[in-house]
Amino acid sequence: MAHIKLKNEELPGIIGLMHYRPETAEPLNQLAETLLRGPSTLTPGEREIIASSVSWWNDCHFCHTSHGAAAAAHHGGDLNLIDEIKAGLPDRDLSPKLRALLAIAKHVQQGGKKVTGTDIAAAREAGATDLEIHDTVLIAAAFCMYNRYVDGLGTWRPEPKEAYKEVGEMLAFKGYLEAVPA
Amino acid sequence: MAHIKLKNEELPGIIGLMHYRPETAEPLNQLAETLLRGPSTLTPGEREIIASSVSWWNDCHFCHTSHGAAAAAHHGGDLNLIDEIKAGLPDRDLSPKLRALLAIAKHVQQGGKKVTGTDIAAAREAGATDLEIHDTVLIAAAFCMYNRYVDGLGTWRPEPKEAYKEVGEMLAFKGYLEAVPA
Repeated sequence: MAHIKLKNEELPGIIGLMHYRPETAEPLNQLAETLLRGPSTLTPGEREIIASSVSWWNDCHFCHTSHGAAAAAHHGGDLNLIDEIKAGLPDRDLSPKLRALLAIAKHVQQGGKKVTGTDIAAAREAGATDLEIHDTVLIAAAFCMYNRYVDGLGTWRPEPKEAYKEVGEMLAFKGYLEAVPA
Repeated sequence: MAHIKLKNEELPGIIGLMHYRPETAEPLNQLAETLLRGPSTLTPGEREIIASSVSWWNDCHFCHTSHGAAAAAHHGGDLNLIDEIKAGLPDRDLSPKLRALLAIAKHVQQGGKKVTGTDIAAAREAGATDLEIHDTVLIAAAFCMYNRYVDGLGTWRPEPKEAYKEVGEMLAFKGYLEAVPA
């Protein structure tokens, strides 16, 4: 049970919190929609892999698994991608650019000042643009917020990854604005 | 100089980033406006103290000092409040409720799962409502984002606290929506 009395205790993770406080849900969803599904030279699937990876590093099961399921939905539907993200995707054919952006995201998760000029130079060398670097830093920073929000209020969440298939498809194909309570 | 080429390199901290990427600036400012200046039983000054404290714990000079200056503007204008926040405000007459909410914020900064039932019970005992606890967790989580965004992209910032007086007054009295580039 969450640390505070929600309006609907059956709603897991951030979903229950968004129904509790629609005034903050709106900008939170608008930010996610812009960063993860807005116009970008990074695919939505690549951006969901960054979001899910940061959530795994922050030990946030709800966000890791729901955004891992969204990444899986963008990549053909195999939910094993969620487990691959835990392992750092060693066997997945990711572009060198995405690997370099994931290295930046990992440093952002540890703290803003952990990002080095070497990280940035490596991403540029792999073909990343300034806007891609900007968005990667902000996605990683934003998930340091979402993860703390979800776990800091002690929200409930399902355990098995199969339970996240539907929410992953919803996030991938309908988007974050659908998640805002009316 | 920032890690990426901004449109106006004279603009410090998050301000330069918001001019670089207005699509994300809008929800970021809307979130800050709602959390820090929207209707609440916590005063705007109390909420800015939480924001500035979290930024100090995250070692983000720009955010600590600008939100400390906003807190000072709400509390009569003495910028020494910025230094008091570094020390944990030992000599300031804060309510037991705000002290308990700051303890929750400190745990959120360390990680969502660091918040304990004991932290929550202590805040309730000191008179905090569920909505105040919710907003404190989200303010602390949001500054874990803003701080990483500002430092993860290596932005420039002035050092002396006096340089933040004007921005503090702007945030306190005009608000965050004024900071969005048109």
